[in-house]
Amino acid sequence: MARQPTLEFWYEFASTYSHLAAQRIGAAAEAAGVAVRWRPFLLGPLFAAQGWTTSPFNVYPAKGRNMWRDLEREAARHGLPPITRPDPFPQNSLSAVRVAVLGQDQDWLVPFSKAVFSASFSEGRSIAEPAAVAGILDTLGLDGTQTVRAAASEANKTRLRVNVEEARSRGIYGAPTFLTEDGELFWGNDRLERALDWAVGDRPGGLR
Amino acid sequence: MARQPTLEFWYEFASTYSHLAAQRIGAAAEAAGVAVRWRPFLLGPLFAAQGWTTSPFNVYPAKGRNMWRDLEREAARHGLPPITRPDPFPQNSLSAVRVAVLGQDQDWLVPFSKAVFSASFSEGRSIAEPAAVAGILDTLGLDGTQTVRAAASEANKTRLRVNVEEARSRGIYGAPTFLTEDGELFWGNDRLERALDWAVGDRPGGLR
Repeated sequence: MARQPTLEFWYEFASTYSHLAAQRIGAAAEAAGVAVRWRPFLLGPLFAAQGWTTSPFNVYPAKGRNMWRDLEREAARHGLPPITRPDPFPQNSLSAVRVAVLGQDQDWLVPFSKAVFSASFSEGRSIAEPAAVAGILDTLGLDGTQTVRAAASEANKTRLRVNVEEARSRGIYGAPTFLTEDGELFWGNDRLERALDWAVGDRPGGLR
Repeated sequence: MARQPTLEFWYEFASTYSHLAAQRIGAAAEAAGVAVRWRPFLLGPLFAAQGWTTSPFNVYPAKGRNMWRDLEREAARHGLPPITRPDPFPQNSLSAVRVAVLGQDQDWLVPFSKAVFSASFSEGRSIAEPAAVAGILDTLGLDGTQTVRAAASEANKTRLRVNVEEARSRGIYGAPTFLTEDGELFWGNDRLERALDWAVGDRPGGLR
């Protein structure tokens, strides 16, 4: 039996379209026969390097207004729950991403990540405070308080910084981003299907 | 027989994804039973209001690099000719858009617009000089020199300014943009099919 190809899924908890991708990548990848490696990271440092101190959807209001409407339409099209807007937007995702980095090789990473996105974009709950993140971990049967504390260790903070630097060095500039094993980069929830096609060798017009 | 719905297609000759949309909207709209109203405009004044003096793909190099690769993939997927990069990018589209505005109610608007996009993004020819635009008009059997001159009239320049102001006031911030008769805005070549669905009343999850 052929080895199963792997697709890296780079996501940020404050990112609206990362939510859509996170909720649907499991089923889509399974149908395509592709394994997914979930790669949590922070967009903030990358945006800061571009001169942004907040989400580009706040920096450019017309773009932001249409993004929320588009998100609503796309969620409906994918059969996901209606969108709630986190207040404030974007949410501070530092505590949540530290936990995700700690869980990078754990079987709870995927359910935890999906639960964070759902809390923020389907239930309108804050994900910014460590206590909110601990509460989500508790509902998954983990020790929330202990896990959040472990995630704040210096070793884990360094691991997150290394992840962000890896994202930057591999050409990532937004989220979600999909990276194939041969380094092909696909940006945006709209490109999930194209990334899966590429991962299994189905490439348009003989491109390499 | 029911009245055919109309979709407005707002495009800019310097915009890479406007090229993809322009080459494929005719067949897609015909299959959907939707009439298309081609609306040429300029992105420059809208970008300037956001503090950009060039394309965002130049302002943000990592984003720009991936855009060219994505454009290459998407062109292949749609069966379009391989992409050439206009040099310089973006091309000054003023002369071409003035002619398109002059042709707004003429039957040559669509073939002219598609020919400008093909010259720029499939053939790597300049579209910036009035003589280049006149040459494209000549190949369509029109009097290029005379048409370019007429397009530079004060009345026509004003018409272009009014179009740009209409774009801004209706919430447009990029190109291509599709606008339905009830004012639903879809941004980007990726949204063409969703815009056509919306135009014929096929709306996700009962959205209005």
